[in-house]
Amino acid sequence: MRSTMMDYPLTLVRFLERAGRYFPDTEIVSRMPDKSLHRESYGDFYRRARALAAALTRAGLKKGDRVATLMWNHYAHLEAYFGVPVSAGVLHTLNLRLHPQEIAYIVNHAEDRFLIVDDILLPLYEQFRSQVNFERVIVVRLTGNPTPDGFDDYEKFIAPGGDAFTYPTIDEKDPLGMCYTSGTTGKPLGVVYSHRSTVLHAMNVGLADAIGTPSGTTYLTLVPMFHVNAWGAPYINTALGIKQVFPGPYYDAESILDLMEREQVGLAAGVPTLWMGVLQALEREPKRWRLLPGLTLVVGGSAAPEAMMRAFDRLGITLLHAWGMTETSPMGTVSRLKPKLEKLGEDQRYAIRVKQGLPALLVELRVMANDKEVPPDDQTMGEIEVRGPFISGGYYKTAPSPEKFSPDGWLRTGDIAVVDAEGYVKIVDRSKDVIKSGGEWISSLDLENFLMGHPAVAEAAVIAVPHPKWDERPLAVIVLKPGQSATPEQLAEFLRPKVPKWWLPDAYVFTDAIPRGSTGKFLKSRLRDLYGKGAPSAAGKAG
Amino acid sequence: MRSTMMDYPLTLVRFLERAGRYFPDTEIVSRMPDKSLHRESYGDFYRRARALAAALTRAGLKKGDRVATLMWNHYAHLEAYFGVPVSAGVLHTLNLRLHPQEIAYIVNHAEDRFLIVDDILLPLYEQFRSQVNFERVIVVRLTGNPTPDGFDDYEKFIAPGGDAFTYPTIDEKDPLGMCYTSGTTGKPLGVVYSHRSTVLHAMNVGLADAIGTPSGTTYLTLVPMFHVNAWGAPYINTALGIKQVFPGPYYDAESILDLMEREQVGLAAGVPTLWMGVLQALEREPKRWRLLPGLTLVVGGSAAPEAMMRAFDRLGITLLHAWGMTETSPMGTVSRLKPKLEKLGEDQRYAIRVKQGLPALLVELRVMANDKEVPPDDQTMGEIEVRGPFISGGYYKTAPSPEKFSPDGWLRTGDIAVVDAEGYVKIVDRSKDVIKSGGEWISSLDLENFLMGHPAVAEAAVIAVPHPKWDERPLAVIVLKPGQSATPEQLAEFLRPKVPKWWLPDAYVFTDAIPRGSTGKFLKSRLRDLYGKGAPSAAGKAG
Repeated sequence: MRSTMMDYPLTLVRFLERAGRYFPDTEIVSRMPDKSLHRESYGDFYRRARALAAALTRAGLKKGDRVATLMWNHYAHLEAYFGVPVSAGVLHTLNLRLHPQEIAYIVNHAEDRFLIVDDILLPLYEQFRSQVNFERVIVVRLTGNPTPDGFDDYEKFIAPGGDAFTYPTIDEKDPLGMCYTSGTTGKPLGVVYSHRSTVLHAMNVGLADAIGTPSGTTYLTLVPMFHVNAWGAPYINTALGIKQVFPGPYYDAESILDLMEREQVGLAAGVPTLWMGVLQALEREPKRWRLLPGLTLVVGGSAAPEAMMRAFDRLGITLLHAWGMTETSPMGTVSRLKPKLEKLGEDQRYAIRVKQGLPALLVELRVMANDKEVPPDDQTMGEIEVRGPFISGGYYKTAPSPEKFSPDGWLRTGDIAVVDAEGYVKIVDRSKDVIKSGGEWISSLDLENFLMGHPAVAEAAVIAVPHPKWDERPLAVIVLKPGQSATPEQLAEFLRPKVPKWWLPDAYVFTDAIPRGSTGKFLKSRLRDLYGKGAPSAAGKAG
Repeated sequence: MRSTMMDYPLTLVRFLERAGRYFPDTEIVSRMPDKSLHRESYGDFYRRARALAAALTRAGLKKGDRVATLMWNHYAHLEAYFGVPVSAGVLHTLNLRLHPQEIAYIVNHAEDRFLIVDDILLPLYEQFRSQVNFERVIVVRLTGNPTPDGFDDYEKFIAPGGDAFTYPTIDEKDPLGMCYTSGTTGKPLGVVYSHRSTVLHAMNVGLADAIGTPSGTTYLTLVPMFHVNAWGAPYINTALGIKQVFPGPYYDAESILDLMEREQVGLAAGVPTLWMGVLQALEREPKRWRLLPGLTLVVGGSAAPEAMMRAFDRLGITLLHAWGMTETSPMGTVSRLKPKLEKLGEDQRYAIRVKQGLPALLVELRVMANDKEVPPDDQTMGEIEVRGPFISGGYYKTAPSPEKFSPDGWLRTGDIAVVDAEGYVKIVDRSKDVIKSGGEWISSLDLENFLMGHPAVAEAAVIAVPHPKWDERPLAVIVLKPGQSATPEQLAEFLRPKVPKWWLPDAYVFTDAIPRGSTGKFLKSRLRDLYGKGAPSAAGKAG
């Protein structure tokens, strides 16, 4: 017996057509370089996205050809988010925070054919121009400056319009977009999203137990659009006719808060460091901005500290914690309280809200140690593995490695977590950072957080060092606050009531600064190079 | 270039597993024949649904085999909703309101192999038992009476449990369920849903611009579970861990309101006649029930009168209008106001809310007349055609007919509608009832509604009669209120300011009662038999 259902592919065409037909008046607001606000309607957006698709097709784009973007968040990037895929092209968003050499590597690896760049970022493009070979470079003029010679002007490129454009036949498994992981170790790896995965991910984001933005909400997309589909927001927001606001190149707290107040934003998405800046500005000038009551901030990319969550709550602003990665499109989990948990005491509720949460509807998640699932006891650590229709099962032009995929085909995320009895996962470390001591695991992150609670400690990083008997043991690298002092014995004493005895670091190294990577995270690989063979003679022993 | 996304099928297994794993404490509440409330947890439900799947597999069920249900809405029906599909069986819900002969026809046409029946409905089964041939009939004992000889007891059937049950391999296009249309003309036609269509439909229902039930809501499913998947509610509610309440066999207003009060229902779904009864009970005893503030009633199946919507609003209860049919899984449209329309005046808002609304995200909808889309002028009529991943493209064991499907593969719904400038569709008639006069269409429904506004008219039905010049002309069949009178001339005078001149009926027939079908709708086919050749001599002419 066969189903009688239509064979109807899940493609982005449906989303674009719905936006253009049913929500032509909805606004898209973008901050421009001169700080003015650019406004276009969904009707304009629809025509321009189709005009872009038509122009790319005229320029010779074939199904699966990559069109790179090097842009901040604004209307033209949104047009590319739709215009490229509906022409059967592949949207490859380049991360402008990477080193130019790395961008060049990624462009060449992906074999990008066209580039759409906004003119604020032309100087960045110039830094890797000689190492790449785009067939055409199309410049979005945000500044008002003329287009330099040798480039296409975006407005002229799309000027013929798309009224006569007809969508090519697209299979739902056809590629739609690409994003490279920003691996701190090894070369970046390319993930290729399909129309199907993008539609399913967007719908999953739209469910009430994920983000579930109601129709009347104004949504501020601070997550960079070059960062994993801006968490899927541009797709689902467009499909549902939700008003979208983009910050352009302005990520300072004042610009963000001005935008939130002016457009009466109800939902915004970004990384913790961004929200930390916003929080500080609000605490500095509590009466300056009149924000929409009920404002919710989606936070992901790294863990949101509980203190920040509490501080925002005091201001009537709710943080909603989510977790994911390039390979998961990215929404893997969201930490909403189950209805029954709303009755818990305040401390318990925060303890859950700061966890990474429950898996999204179409995401299967398990936490594995020694080839089996860890018990849901909130303390046994294992690696998060996921699978689902919007999870990557491999990398572009790269053979799948057992380090990245389990023998039965689950993605190994590299995140070490515990699971509680309710099923909430909490990430405690990265797999390469966790310390494997005597068959048990020690969370370097937990140790760091505890150490940074010591009044004399400014920064703390904990790494594994080899040990003849225990395999690995923890070593702590400490930066003291100016004018403060602490001995290894004092630090061990401070830790003792907080962690199991065998977690106490074997050694402490005192230094002036901990090396950090481009995203601001500790460069533990560098620390392992420096101290990975054990503490230098200057270091103290304790424990 | 190919996407790197996993090849992961959309099946109901994901929904069931999520419910069992993450929401084991959520309640499922069912009204029993003795009016007591049966409570089971999602944990119980999960184990029992899997136990049913295991038992069916042991009983020899093969992929695609049909398992019929003849049940009211309760826990066991929900168990079948999941247990049958995850064993790769096909859930065939039988409509207990049909004539026993018709049920027998449907069972035989679908070649149902097993039947799960609740013991309240055993007497109904006995009425067609001799005409069908189930391999096993499994009885859910709700009354406490013993299982009669020759039947399987449901509890004994599933008693071995499903702990060792492993899901068979299911392709997302494999069939999951069946439902027959209750055509007033011709034989019932079978629609076969797939796992894919069911998952996509459920997720679409879960979006905020469709139903979008928030996690903490208690949902009362009054739509019969034998009626088009109970509008998808059991699927999405289970996946999201939403508390579900079922009325069992009790559909009287008092039982419904008692249940709503006791379980503090936030969302309920049912047909207009049901809500009309509830409204009358509330107006009769306004202080009797303490319902949850913000209660929302989803209404579909037929159009909700504006007066009812207004009356509920006065009680603080919101009606949400939706439209669909067996072939559309069923959610086709939902009439939510776009944010900008919230600012309209009260009358304008009601005028939109009583329309059928905007198409669901994954539904493509067009209104066609003379092979092209009608203009969005809110007055040109055409037939609604739809396509999408949960729309049927045919019928079981039936060759597709041009009457049901357009040459380019859209489903022709048989509903005649107009579209306004915002894209909202409003159904004005059924295609077989609309009157085609001189190349233009006249809505029989509109004429009926206007005529029923006349103080002397109790009921009015309008049908087409052949006309040598205009092809068809309207004839009105009128039932006067007791002791009242009206002449054809008076009725025409009453209609004149309300409709175009050429809409005025050519003739009026006065009768004692209008024949109705089993669902309470006018039997226009019978009227056409009686009067379709023109008005009898007793009828009056006017116009």
